[in-house]
Amino acid sequence: MTTERDVTSEPAGRKSNIEKEKTEVSFLYLSEEDMVDAGVLNAARCVDVMEETIGLMEDGDFIMGGPYNDAHGLMLYFPKKSPIENFPINNSRDRRFIAMPAYLGGRFHVAGEKWYGSNGDNRRKGLPRSILMVMLNDVETGKPLAYMSGNLLSSMRTGAMPGMAAKLLAVKNAKVLTLLGCGVVNKACLMSIMTVRPEIETIKIKGSSPTSKTALNMKSYIEKSYPRVKNVIICATMEEAVRDADIVSEAISCMAGQWPEVKREWMKPGLLYISSSTFNMDYKSIVDLKKVIDNYGMYENYAEEDELGYDEAGNRLHTGCMGEDFVYMVEDGLIERDSITQIGQIIRGKKPGRESDDEIILVSMEGMPIEDVAWAYECYTYALVHDIGTRLKVWDKPRAF
Amino acid sequence: MTTERDVTSEPAGRKSNIEKEKTEVSFLYLSEEDMVDAGVLNAARCVDVMEETIGLMEDGDFIMGGPYNDAHGLMLYFPKKSPIENFPINNSRDRRFIAMPAYLGGRFHVAGEKWYGSNGDNRRKGLPRSILMVMLNDVETGKPLAYMSGNLLSSMRTGAMPGMAAKLLAVKNAKVLTLLGCGVVNKACLMSIMTVRPEIETIKIKGSSPTSKTALNMKSYIEKSYPRVKNVIICATMEEAVRDADIVSEAISCMAGQWPEVKREWMKPGLLYISSSTFNMDYKSIVDLKKVIDNYGMYENYAEEDELGYDEAGNRLHTGCMGEDFVYMVEDGLIERDSITQIGQIIRGKKPGRESDDEIILVSMEGMPIEDVAWAYECYTYALVHDIGTRLKVWDKPRAF
Repeated sequence: MTTERDVTSEPAGRKSNIEKEKTEVSFLYLSEEDMVDAGVLNAARCVDVMEETIGLMEDGDFIMGGPYNDAHGLMLYFPKKSPIENFPINNSRDRRFIAMPAYLGGRFHVAGEKWYGSNGDNRRKGLPRSILMVMLNDVETGKPLAYMSGNLLSSMRTGAMPGMAAKLLAVKNAKVLTLLGCGVVNKACLMSIMTVRPEIETIKIKGSSPTSKTALNMKSYIEKSYPRVKNVIICATMEEAVRDADIVSEAISCMAGQWPEVKREWMKPGLLYISSSTFNMDYKSIVDLKKVIDNYGMYENYAEEDELGYDEAGNRLHTGCMGEDFVYMVEDGLIERDSITQIGQIIRGKKPGRESDDEIILVSMEGMPIEDVAWAYECYTYALVHDIGTRLKVWDKPRAF
Repeated sequence: MTTERDVTSEPAGRKSNIEKEKTEVSFLYLSEEDMVDAGVLNAARCVDVMEETIGLMEDGDFIMGGPYNDAHGLMLYFPKKSPIENFPINNSRDRRFIAMPAYLGGRFHVAGEKWYGSNGDNRRKGLPRSILMVMLNDVETGKPLAYMSGNLLSSMRTGAMPGMAAKLLAVKNAKVLTLLGCGVVNKACLMSIMTVRPEIETIKIKGSSPTSKTALNMKSYIEKSYPRVKNVIICATMEEAVRDADIVSEAISCMAGQWPEVKREWMKPGLLYISSSTFNMDYKSIVDLKKVIDNYGMYENYAEEDELGYDEAGNRLHTGCMGEDFVYMVEDGLIERDSITQIGQIIRGKKPGRESDDEIILVSMEGMPIEDVAWAYECYTYALVHDIGTRLKVWDKPRAF
C-alpha cells in the first residue's frame, strides 16, 4: 500500500516532502534450489565479485561489526561440559553459532548478515556440518530484502577468495595445482582457481588418507569436470603433495594443534601457497617470503583473543592460522608490519603483487561477512531479474501499536 | 525426504546407528499478521515467559555471544560523516544494525537471533524506527526452524520485563502508575503492568510536551482500553508526573546527554521506578535505595565500552543508563556490588524482593536476546499447533557440492 503526500496538501508551516511513503515491507525468499537457479555456483563471476568487494574494503567503503569496524562476527560458544542437564555441549569437532553482519558500499550499498550453526555431529544425520542462512537488508530503512539458503553461497565465496588470489598472484603459466584437503571448501577453491588458470594440467590431492572417501570423490570430480587435466594424483604425504606445485590451496579440516607441518624446502620457486584453514610452518623459514592477507585487523583480533605465548624452550607457539601467525611474527620482531600486504592494496595498485616468477608467495584467507553480503546481493539481483524465488510479505503497513 | 539406516545393512566394522536421517530442512515463516494470530500481543503470557526466562538466566541455562557469554549483540556503527560518496551516515537520532544471537535452555532448548536495522528517519517514510526480524534455530543441528516479523515481538518482550518487575516488586495495592515517555516501548510496558496490577486507577503521562501527539494518543488508548482507570492525566513536568506514583515506567526517547533529571524528593515511599531507556538522578541521592537490574555483566560491558570519566569539578559523569550508572557507583565506592540485586536472584529466592511497603526500588531493564528467543519460541509453538504461517523449504536434501 502506498500513500503519496502532495506538497499542496501539507499543513502550513510544516516541512514537507514529496516522497512516496512506501509502508509495505516484503522480501524475497530463495531456497537452495533457487540459489542454484540464481547463479550461486558461477565460480568465475564469484571471483570477480570478490575482487570488487576487497577493492571496496581497501577503499574503506564497508562496515563490519563493533566499534573498530572489524568484527568477523559474534559467536555463541558451547562449553565442553555443563552441570545442567541437556545443556548443549561442545563434544564434537565444530560446534558454534555465528552471526556475521556487514554493510558493503559501492554499487552494492546493502546491509546483510550470515547466520549459522555448526555441529560436527551433523554429518551422521546426513546434514552438512553447518547450516547457513543469509539475509540482505535495505541499509537506509533496515527493511529485509532477501532471506536465502546460504550453504552454497558460503562455500562459493570461500573458494572464490583463493581463486581471486590465484588470478592476481599465481604464475601465469601455472601447470600444477595441489589441493591439501578434499572437503567442500577446497572443491569451491578448485572451481574458482580453474576459471583463472585453465592451463592447469596436473592436480595433486592430499586427503586425510590416500584411500579416504573425500580424496577419491575429489579425483572423480576432477576427472569428470576438467577433461583437460591430464594427471590427477592422490598423494600419500604432505611433502609429495606440496613439491613441484605452482599453486597450493590448503583447506584442511583437523583438530586444533594437529595442523600438518609444511616445510620450506618442499616449495618450488614461484609457488603461490594459499591457506584457508590451517597453517604450520617454522617461523624462521618463512621470514623472507612475500606475505599477503585479506584483513590484518581481523588477525590482530584473533591474536588478541587467543593470547598464545611461548613453549618452555622460549619458542613462540603456533596458532594454526597463517594470518594470525604473521601477527605474532610482527610482535616478535621477526618481520615488519609493512612486509605484509593486504590483497586490496594489490587490487588498488598501492603495493605490488607478484614481482618475479621465482617469488614464493604465502596468502592467508579467512572469510569476512562483506563477502557473503556481496555474493548474496549478486544472486538476489539475478533472482529479481529472472523472477526466481518466493515473495513474502512482512506487513502491508506496520501495525499501529 | 528421509532415509533410514538399518543396523543389519551397515558394512562390517563401521560404527552404526539406527537414527533416521532427516535431511529435509524447512522452516515456518510468520508475517506480522501471523504473529498477532500466534499470540504475540498476549501481554500476561509474555510477562510469565519473561519471568521463566530470567529464572533460567539465573540458573546459567543460556548462552549469549562472545567468550564471556554476555554480549548484548554485535552492532554496525554508522559514522557521523564520510568522505565516501553515498556512504550511510548517522545523521539521525538512531542509526544502527544489530545482530543479537542467543541460546535459551530449559523447556525452550533453542537457539535464535534477532536482527534489525534502525533509522530515526524511518518515521518520515511511514515506517517504524526499527524493522526487526527474528530467527529460531535447532540448537543441535543449526537448522532454521522459524523466521518471523519481530517488531511486535520485540516491543512486547521489552514491555513485559517492566511488567515482570512490577509483578514481583510493586506494592500490592498500587493505584497510581506513571508513564514517562509515550512511545511504543511504554505502551508495551503499560499493557504488561496492567495485567499484574489491574487495581491501578490513575495513570499519569509525560510526553515530549503536554500537547504531543503521542501523549494524546496514549491518553486515548488508555481511556479506550482500561475503563477501570478513572484518571488519565497528561503532565507538564517530570516532577508532576513522578510525584505520588506507586509505579513509574520510564521509556523516554531523547538525544544523548539530554536525559531529563528526576529528583529523589519527588519519589513517594513504596515507589517502584523502572527504567528502560534513560536515567538521570544525582548519585548521592540514590545510594540508600534498593537497586535491581536484569544482568550486571551487560552493564559492566557498557561501562567498559563507554569509559566515561569525570567532569572538571571531579564529579562522575552520567551515562544516561541506570544500570551503567550503578556500575560507576560501585567503581567509585559509593555502593557495594552486593547491594545490587539481579532480578533472577529474586525469582529464584536467593535474595529478597520488596521488604516493606515504604521501600523505594529502582529497576534497570535493558533487553537481552534470550528474551527475544523465549517470546519467539512461544509464538512459534503456538503457530505450529494452530497451523499459522507459511512453511518454506530450504532443501529436500542438501546438494552434494
